[in-house]
Amino acid sequence: MNNIHIILASASPRRRELMQQIGLDFEVKVSEVEERVTSTVPEEVVQELSRQKAEAVARLFLGREESKDNRLVLGADTIVACDGRILGKPRDAADAVRMLTMLSGRAHEVYTGVTFAYQDPVGDAIETHTFYECTKVHFASMTAEEIAEYVATGDPLDKAGAYGIQGFCARYITGIEGDYNNVVGLPVGRVYQELKKMRLE
Amino acid sequence: MNNIHIILASASPRRRELMQQIGLDFEVKVSEVEERVTSTVPEEVVQELSRQKAEAVARLFLGREESKDNRLVLGADTIVACDGRILGKPRDAADAVRMLTMLSGRAHEVYTGVTFAYQDPVGDAIETHTFYECTKVHFASMTAEEIAEYVATGDPLDKAGAYGIQGFCARYITGIEGDYNNVVGLPVGRVYQELKKMRLE
Repeated sequence: MNNIHIILASASPRRRELMQQIGLDFEVKVSEVEERVTSTVPEEVVQELSRQKAEAVARLFLGREESKDNRLVLGADTIVACDGRILGKPRDAADAVRMLTMLSGRAHEVYTGVTFAYQDPVGDAIETHTFYECTKVHFASMTAEEIAEYVATGDPLDKAGAYGIQGFCARYITGIEGDYNNVVGLPVGRVYQELKKMRLE
Repeated sequence: MNNIHIILASASPRRRELMQQIGLDFEVKVSEVEERVTSTVPEEVVQELSRQKAEAVARLFLGREESKDNRLVLGADTIVACDGRILGKPRDAADAVRMLTMLSGRAHEVYTGVTFAYQDPVGDAIETHTFYECTKVHFASMTAEEIAEYVATGDPLDKAGAYGIQGFCARYITGIEGDYNNVVGLPVGRVYQELKKMRLE
């Protein structure tokens, strides 16, 4: 967006790459957040966490020197949900094997919550706009050997649900329903459309 | 696959990257083919063309020195279909604008046909195994300015349907149904599963 300056409140290299891919100018600023989750409903969890991340960075950087600025903080959080259970990043290789065994041969959902935090154009308050996207992912059956081989690559260890759709694991993914980039970590189709609406308002 | 040596019969850098991404060993060999299409049905067109590409390379390279070899030639072809009309690569920038205007604000289908060509383990003939995948792609509405901006990047000019899902254009794609990599140019989930079946036979 020409007249909005975006601050990405995420240290994730994958989110940074996606923002670059769709041609958005932004800078990265991250703040330590004590994550507090009050829900176990996946779409509520990711929206809460995205809001906490965006607000923490907005409190530090917005409305200080230049008040009424046109900066917008973007926070995001992604989780995997399978059978009503939420899968974050695996603790270790054994936990990654457990998660992949659960996902093998069936479908699960990936949720990403996104929050825009920005200064109220009239008052001084920080306003937020939060939304989420859900993508269904269909996995082929994996043998125990295939799971062990994939975990040995190291790729699962830093990823929610213990897999990266954009890597080696694509060989086990037969299809999805929804935004692919939402599974990578940021639904850039929806993000761009929401930014466009804000510019037009 | 451990015991199958793959020859990729495609000059596409995107297909090469996808094969590397899922960890398959392969080499690239391309042959000039006079493409002959007898159908206007999208899934038949891509299967015919993938078979012609695979067979042309198989005739050149299989069963020469080492007969009964374990090499397999993989040919692929991708097209975009919208309202029963087939979109290949645009002729020029104006043609890309025309295609993107057609795709804006609606869904279309992307078809990739894949053929494995290999030597009959008993006789000398070249056998083939052909399949296809279809992915539905949902585009947000694009303004004339947005279409012009995207065409000016040059990205649409070498791609069927005048867009690359893996680039800048992701900002206009709100979701898909099917294999994402099928839209990039090769349904690697299906390809891997078909290779696995061949190894087990």
